[in-house]
Amino acid sequence: MPRFHRVVIVGVGLLGGSIGLALRGRGLAERIIGVGRSMQSLLQAQQLGAITDVSTDLLQAATGADLVIIGTPVQTIADFVKNCCDSKLNENCLITDVGSTKANICRQLTDREHQHFCGSHPMAGSDKTGVAHARADLFVGRKTIITPVEQTSAIAVQQAESLWQQLGSEVVQLTPEVHDQAVANISHLPHVVAAALAANTNERLLSLTGDGWRDTTRVAGGEVELWRQIICENRQSLLSELRQYAHSLDGWIDALDANDQQRIVELLALGKKVRDSLAGSHRSPN
Amino acid sequence: MPRFHRVVIVGVGLLGGSIGLALRGRGLAERIIGVGRSMQSLLQAQQLGAITDVSTDLLQAATGADLVIIGTPVQTIADFVKNCCDSKLNENCLITDVGSTKANICRQLTDREHQHFCGSHPMAGSDKTGVAHARADLFVGRKTIITPVEQTSAIAVQQAESLWQQLGSEVVQLTPEVHDQAVANISHLPHVVAAALAANTNERLLSLTGDGWRDTTRVAGGEVELWRQIICENRQSLLSELRQYAHSLDGWIDALDANDQQRIVELLALGKKVRDSLAGSHRSPN
Repeated sequence: MPRFHRVVIVGVGLLGGSIGLALRGRGLAERIIGVGRSMQSLLQAQQLGAITDVSTDLLQAATGADLVIIGTPVQTIADFVKNCCDSKLNENCLITDVGSTKANICRQLTDREHQHFCGSHPMAGSDKTGVAHARADLFVGRKTIITPVEQTSAIAVQQAESLWQQLGSEVVQLTPEVHDQAVANISHLPHVVAAALAANTNERLLSLTGDGWRDTTRVAGGEVELWRQIICENRQSLLSELRQYAHSLDGWIDALDANDQQRIVELLALGKKVRDSLAGSHRSPN
Repeated sequence: MPRFHRVVIVGVGLLGGSIGLALRGRGLAERIIGVGRSMQSLLQAQQLGAITDVSTDLLQAATGADLVIIGTPVQTIADFVKNCCDSKLNENCLITDVGSTKANICRQLTDREHQHFCGSHPMAGSDKTGVAHARADLFVGRKTIITPVEQTSAIAVQQAESLWQQLGSEVVQLTPEVHDQAVANISHLPHVVAAALAANTNERLLSLTGDGWRDTTRVAGGEVELWRQIICENRQSLLSELRQYAHSLDGWIDALDANDQQRIVELLALGKKVRDSLAGSHRSPN
């Protein structure tokens, strides 16, 4: 018997679509209702097997649901959660999301009626967006951060944890604030660094670029509006990371300007040490 | 009949080894003599099929050679070329290299006796080093820049061009100075940006990183001494690129500090535009 009888996925893009594929692939869900504004994109998700049903009416879709996943851009998530809480969900229905920021969302959901919401952030994604890139194994071997707060019910926390584990993820629990500081460092700073690097590239030289340039700038291909929202939600933490990073670059500029070979070696070695230590902290190669 | 009877590869690492594999795989060379200081690494290259013979004596190996490739770190290349020119090479033997910088090397090789040297830089590589990572198809579909100068013989230019084409590369001709400015922008700046990004990462968060962090920092895993030499050879161009990049980051900091949504969108869109236009300038996907 499938664990979930009625799943609702609001925003069936790369992440929402991958959850749908993974739930179905594992026989965990009976019906998966995709909710969105674009019927064309919902029908594509249905055709790809990410959802079984389509709807443009959230309240109707959510009636009787035992799992709701909000896969929309971060600045719209809290409102969708509130709408779901106003609908006739099943008792103990888990509501979760896949947003890249958490503090601002959770600050808007502190009432007792939001006890069934437990924020999630799977550390899996791509510069590609859209259900066409969804994959049933997207979460396998990846960490997923969940961010319960004071009023989150124990059962919602337990359900969120077991959901992500069933999709192949290892679950880490952080407060929304610690989560946002962490992703400012390991995700949002790299995005800005890559965007600035791409923007600084002489376009006439693009045809000469190798794998180095390609990998270093890959994330800069991400959707502008998605990233605008992420950056604005996490502006203060990102600003602090960016200032620290700019300070490091000043150190590089000083070392080069002074032709300080020893300092250049130290700076290169420091970067290599951190990059190389990744191998020890991940199961996957490279 | 193979095109080359006696090939010498000085420094049989990732690039030198890949040239050996590619020459042998295509039946272009009869004998390929690997020259290096470490007999252990030469024997490994021989075992992997990248070379047919090993030698620790360059002058002896180069006697009668009709192709010499210098695959050593950039600051040692000019001296190796000079040594080769002092040995009994075949008439019209091509001497070339695979160094990531060109201006300083070519400035040391301006005598008439260096007419058989034509500098090369295949835009293929990896953060991985060593012959164990060498691949016969490393240059296929990649650009290789050649940098002939005034005294380079016409036959050396023609030979260098046809060598790289036979290994699968598309050849682009630049002056050594234009080459160095180009790679400061598309290769050496990304390296410093990635090294600084890795160095700024909170190591306790490494286990949470996803593909974004991994790709953006990949090149920071490159060998420190190789990169020290590259950076020092191209210090002035890199410094100028780095200052311009730091200025862009200041623009990001100002936009975030002022919460200037429109400017943030513009900055994101600019990075995305350049990154996305890569697709049109390459044959390979992504």
